[in-house]
Amino acid sequence: MSSGGHIMAGIEEEEEEEEEENMAAWLLGIKNLKIGPYHLPSLGPHDVKVRIKALGICGSDVHHFKTMRCANFIVKKPMVIGHECAGVIEEVGSEVKTLAVGDRVALEPGISCRRCNLCKDGRYNLCPEMKFFGSPPTNGALANKVVHPANLCFKLPENVSLEEGAMCEPLSVGVHACRRAKIGPDTNVLIMGAGPIGLITLLAAHAFGAPRVMLIDVDGHRLSIAKKLGADEILQVSTNIEDVGEEVQKIQSAMSSGIDVSFDCVGYAKTMSTALNATRSGGKACLIGLALSEMTVPLTPAAAREVDIIGIFRYRNTWPLCIELLRTGKIDVKPLITHRFSFSQEEVEKAFETSAGGSNAIKVMFNL
Amino acid sequence: MSSGGHIMAGIEEEEEEEEEENMAAWLLGIKNLKIGPYHLPSLGPHDVKVRIKALGICGSDVHHFKTMRCANFIVKKPMVIGHECAGVIEEVGSEVKTLAVGDRVALEPGISCRRCNLCKDGRYNLCPEMKFFGSPPTNGALANKVVHPANLCFKLPENVSLEEGAMCEPLSVGVHACRRAKIGPDTNVLIMGAGPIGLITLLAAHAFGAPRVMLIDVDGHRLSIAKKLGADEILQVSTNIEDVGEEVQKIQSAMSSGIDVSFDCVGYAKTMSTALNATRSGGKACLIGLALSEMTVPLTPAAAREVDIIGIFRYRNTWPLCIELLRTGKIDVKPLITHRFSFSQEEVEKAFETSAGGSNAIKVMFNL
Amino acid sequence: MSSGGHIMAGIEEEEEEEEEENMAAWLLGIKNLKIGPYHLPSLGPHDVKVRIKALGICGSDVHHFKTMRCANFIVKKPMVIGHECAGVIEEVGSEVKTLAVGDRVALEPGISCRRCNLCKDGRYNLCPEMKFFGSPPTNGALANKVVHPANLCFKLPENVSLEEGAMCEPLSVGVHACRRAKIGPDTNVLIMGAGPIGLITLLAAHAFGAPRVMLIDVDGHRLSIAKKLGADEILQVSTNIEDVGEEVQKIQSAMSSGIDVSFDCVGYAKTMSTALNATRSGGKACLIGLALSEMTVPLTPAAAREVDIIGIFRYRNTWPLCIELLRTGKIDVKPLITHRFSFSQEEVEKAFETSAGGSNAIKVMFNL
Amino acid sequence: MSSGGHIMAGIEEEEEEEEEENMAAWLLGIKNLKIGPYHLPSLGPHDVKVRIKALGICGSDVHHFKTMRCANFIVKKPMVIGHECAGVIEEVGSEVKTLAVGDRVALEPGISCRRCNLCKDGRYNLCPEMKFFGSPPTNGALANKVVHPANLCFKLPENVSLEEGAMCEPLSVGVHACRRAKIGPDTNVLIMGAGPIGLITLLAAHAFGAPRVMLIDVDGHRLSIAKKLGADEILQVSTNIEDVGEEVQKIQSAMSSGIDVSFDCVGYAKTMSTALNATRSGGKACLIGLALSEMTVPLTPAAAREVDIIGIFRYRNTWPLCIELLRTGKIDVKPLITHRFSFSQEEVEKAFETSAGGSNAIKVMFNL
Repeated sequence: MSSGGHIMAGIEEEEEEEEEENMAAWLLGIKNLKIGPYHLPSLGPHDVKVRIKALGICGSDVHHFKTMRCANFIVKKPMVIGHECAGVIEEVGSEVKTLAVGDRVALEPGISCRRCNLCKDGRYNLCPEMKFFGSPPTNGALANKVVHPANLCFKLPENVSLEEGAMCEPLSVGVHACRRAKIGPDTNVLIMGAGPIGLITLLAAHAFGAPRVMLIDVDGHRLSIAKKLGADEILQVSTNIEDVGEEVQKIQSAMSSGIDVSFDCVGYAKTMSTALNATRSGGKACLIGLALSEMTVPLTPAAAREVDIIGIFRYRNTWPLCIELLRTGKIDVKPLITHRFSFSQEEVEKAFETSAGGSNAIKVMFNL
Repeated sequence: MSSGGHIMAGIEEEEEEEEEENMAAWLLGIKNLKIGPYHLPSLGPHDVKVRIKALGICGSDVHHFKTMRCANFIVKKPMVIGHECAGVIEEVGSEVKTLAVGDRVALEPGISCRRCNLCKDGRYNLCPEMKFFGSPPTNGALANKVVHPANLCFKLPENVSLEEGAMCEPLSVGVHACRRAKIGPDTNVLIMGAGPIGLITLLAAHAFGAPRVMLIDVDGHRLSIAKKLGADEILQVSTNIEDVGEEVQKIQSAMSSGIDVSFDCVGYAKTMSTALNATRSGGKACLIGLALSEMTVPLTPAAAREVDIIGIFRYRNTWPLCIELLRTGKIDVKPLITHRFSFSQEEVEKAFETSAGGSNAIKVMFNL
Repeated sequence: MSSGGHIMAGIEEEEEEEEEENMAAWLLGIKNLKIGPYHLPSLGPHDVKVRIKALGICGSDVHHFKTMRCANFIVKKPMVIGHECAGVIEEVGSEVKTLAVGDRVALEPGISCRRCNLCKDGRYNLCPEMKFFGSPPTNGALANKVVHPANLCFKLPENVSLEEGAMCEPLSVGVHACRRAKIGPDTNVLIMGAGPIGLITLLAAHAFGAPRVMLIDVDGHRLSIAKKLGADEILQVSTNIEDVGEEVQKIQSAMSSGIDVSFDCVGYAKTMSTALNATRSGGKACLIGLALSEMTVPLTPAAAREVDIIGIFRYRNTWPLCIELLRTGKIDVKPLITHRFSFSQEEVEKAFETSAGGSNAIKVMFNL
Repeated sequence: MSSGGHIMAGIEEEEEEEEEENMAAWLLGIKNLKIGPYHLPSLGPHDVKVRIKALGICGSDVHHFKTMRCANFIVKKPMVIGHECAGVIEEVGSEVKTLAVGDRVALEPGISCRRCNLCKDGRYNLCPEMKFFGSPPTNGALANKVVHPANLCFKLPENVSLEEGAMCEPLSVGVHACRRAKIGPDTNVLIMGAGPIGLITLLAAHAFGAPRVMLIDVDGHRLSIAKKLGADEILQVSTNIEDVGEEVQKIQSAMSSGIDVSFDCVGYAKTMSTALNATRSGGKACLIGLALSEMTVPLTPAAAREVDIIGIFRYRNTWPLCIELLRTGKIDVKPLITHRFSFSQEEVEKAFETSAGGSNAIKVMFNL
């Protein structure tokens, strides 16, 4: 990417005042990640400066890495990548009362405007002015340090590690989904897809009391992990769209008391069709995975059984609960961390290639 | 239809005991409706016998008339047609305390089992054992008399006519939709389709306090009726699926404060796509019309804005509210009744042909 | 009680047709319980006949035993006592499809009318025509056999005993309370009172995912049982109404993340005042215990913090969940059963005296 | 009040920089209001400066005026009074995009922290760090000018006057109550108290679709106003607590279809007892009026019918809806404005004396 050097030059111009130079992983082009200086914005009265110690790679990061875009968000200029992170407070703004230097914290990556109707109504994840780590054009957190609002940094108890702190981000997706779907001891659950989000939704559903959770995937290895993580039922299926009816029969026979809530953590026409058809009358089908934009699905038969479709976008107000679930051991996310890398040019490249590579990697984690 | 006579013969065998012979309109085959004797079941202790005085034709009746089926329900043997009705009580069962002979009542057409989990949970419209007037294999109500549970017969106040009583059935669909969508003075509404259900949903939405309601249709005549019934905005569109983006722009410009809830009263890929794309983040899209079974729709962009999709199937616990809305004049359904017929062989055929015929008929009503 | 013999004579007149005579425990007067013949109503098509095998004594049964009344319900004629029960099906009505002779079942004791607005809306526990085992004037279940609607008899899995089946009734109160209060992994819970209902609400709250549950009582023995059953915090207090402020301070210091939901399982002015004052702004205080009718409480300070007060009356649709919680071992009710008696005149009297006697008995169970 | 002059001296020290001196009504002691200079804080980037044109006197202002306190809030130093207001924008902060100089706006008086859990969850009215106009120690708005966050200033349409804009504040209480109580065309409503809040709740309930609203008061004059404002039923009662049973009978006979939701806009033991007893099983009783702190009420009989008690504190996200209801004429607040005063020392005193004086004044309004 010929323009990369030029843009980097522009970045370098900003990097003077800091004593110890802050470095970050900049996405410059398709599969082009370079560690370079990152000049932080000044610390506002309600901000803290955090030294990042753990950061996980998310599927959306991989999308940015491979295509310079994710959904409608396009990377148009160099951007620091990464958003699942935890670290240690190095400095606090003048008005910050609840955090102190040295505190270990997990970071919620999205800064909402706090002034629009959606923010004031408590649905800040839908804020149209959201600034989200590593979602263009906002810089991310794969860096030595970041500046972040104190109210989005959540103190970790002693028995929760920084890696687990970083895992609060993907865990939040599962928690938000379980909240929106009102999972409880009454709800039998079907999860389409045993990737990171499917597995995390499994853990969250059990923590919310779901008595039986079934996972479906095309990949036997992922299903075996699901089983280890406590899935009550697993089912390996083909990608053949013709098999939906047969799949639904198998689901209903394995889960004889019925599926109250299904989570499609993939987002294909087939997975969503199975989710809709397998859910009982009056139940809910939640769409979390966003693989396809348009899809052909049996919408009216679902509507005629009042199976509602619930959209899930990120999360809101989830960090305290995630930390509590980790603290009490109700959820153990450690088995999901399959690969670890350090923060060097070579390792960063290797880490992203690993995450992009295949199904054996679930969560790839940086230790900075 | 050669077997018709034979089947009718079977019916005739049952028709002895009644003094005055009860006659009903039997659907025998495609576009083959015959008035013939209808032997009623005996009156249970909680039942009433009602002389039907007004009955409206619904789109699903027309489907049965034209195709001998509607969705997955197939007419396999002669069936009395019709389900939107009101009449006068002629006899009451031994345990009936709240109704008396001579009472004018509107009839809720579906008898649920009252024992299954969905019934006990108050979602009886989803009861898998529902027996519904004129939905095969249950006989309907286009008859001189029917026997029906007293708790599904609702007394009409003096200022509500029997025709208005019969209109409680379609009105119930709009009321149930507004309840499920939580329509109130905060919700700006978009309605796709200005047919009978779209128009009734308009009336219901206003009664629930919706400040602004916009209707969209391809038919200018229907939209002019919508305007007369109080639509705040109307928009005539084409059937061209390519135009969705343009439509959404027009909607958003006409409804500048945003669409909080959209009702698709048609059920095509195009109408549902427009509904999903036009609804604000965090809003709801309700699917009422069931024209298509499968449809190709932009499901993930809607999910990523947490636009939930709410399925609407018939109604539950709506008659008292419908009657109250008619009594107080908050809703006037009389302008929707465009054609009237009496209960004779010739008129019954003419009535169904009229209802099946085209867009100028909104509600076709029998006066028996 | 001089009229007892006379009334018994009346009862005896009815007792002929049955081969094996059905015996029941009749409440004849204050502390006057007599085992005598009980002629069952005939088996309807949707009914089953159940041989009762286990029955627990509830606080309301003790009230009837000691005072011939409970709240507004007065025992005016001999009444079979008891309502927490399980047994084995001996006969099924002609329309019963889901149960068979020999099935072990837990019985939901209340028969609602299934026709009123509250029943149709799914809130059947509030049905004004409820017929409830052992609530005057409806006969109860401390009998060899009872006739009951099949849809209120719930099959027990192999690993759930009949005693546990009988415990579904008190457990249902806790489950209904947790549902109404929307207990989940986000809700820290305070329970006032460590009697049977308080202890059961503790078990239910944990099963619903409550991270921390604190119990308060005046009785140290009961609190030690609460601790064994998993209470995260316990606090012994006095009955002195002056101490509310101090109690609230102790609660808030023990539960530093705040009380989201409090359950008053006692129903005194003091317990309710503590519950209201200890609950965080925007939380809920649930009133389950009904010791006092009128009480003097700080209602407006609670309202000014939008602490809503949720009333709990019995339960609805809880048996399937209770059985599932017992089957999976998420709840173990066996430690609550402290005393067992057989079904003889002498034992029945002893059992009720034990239950009425003091705090060492939690649940007194009959094995019939 | 001897210290008044001294404190005023303190205030005067701050009053230099402004060209045109900003004057405000300072509460210095019991019934001691003085117009004096008010030095405004500097305009932040998200703030606007508003010239106040209309301000209404609220019951809480009168409490402060008469007692230097309201509930737990005590006026410890001179404080500008008043919080129901509207005005014209004179200056906008650098980041304000949605408002311009000259815009006519209604002001929401409470500034929440926007960072705590309650704010982030959308329940900002419960924010523990709320800064609220004229609630000690925060200065109010009875002043020529105030500085306020732009997102709490709502543009008025041409057909809504500044006085009506000021009325959005009390109207918000009624709207918030109707939202929390889920008022709709299904809910028959009882309102205890025909003072300003009772009357406004009447208007709001009708706008939310309530079919029948009954008002109860001891004052015949207020009830006659309620009747003019559209009350469907009114009932004059005594203050005698013994009469609750009789009152409930009269209510139930006038509102034969039952009370679904009751609003106690007074907050006495008697009014709350009537509200609780008159509400149907499964309904809601909302406590808005906060006259008494502790009260003796029949809490358990209400709980045993699952009549929930909903606390109402101020409002959240109500201004856009209030303005829409005024714009469309669904609510007309003009008849509530019974007295008008200008902003001079003499008039201010007279206005507060009028508002404090008796039942003939409903809303006393300043025109500045």
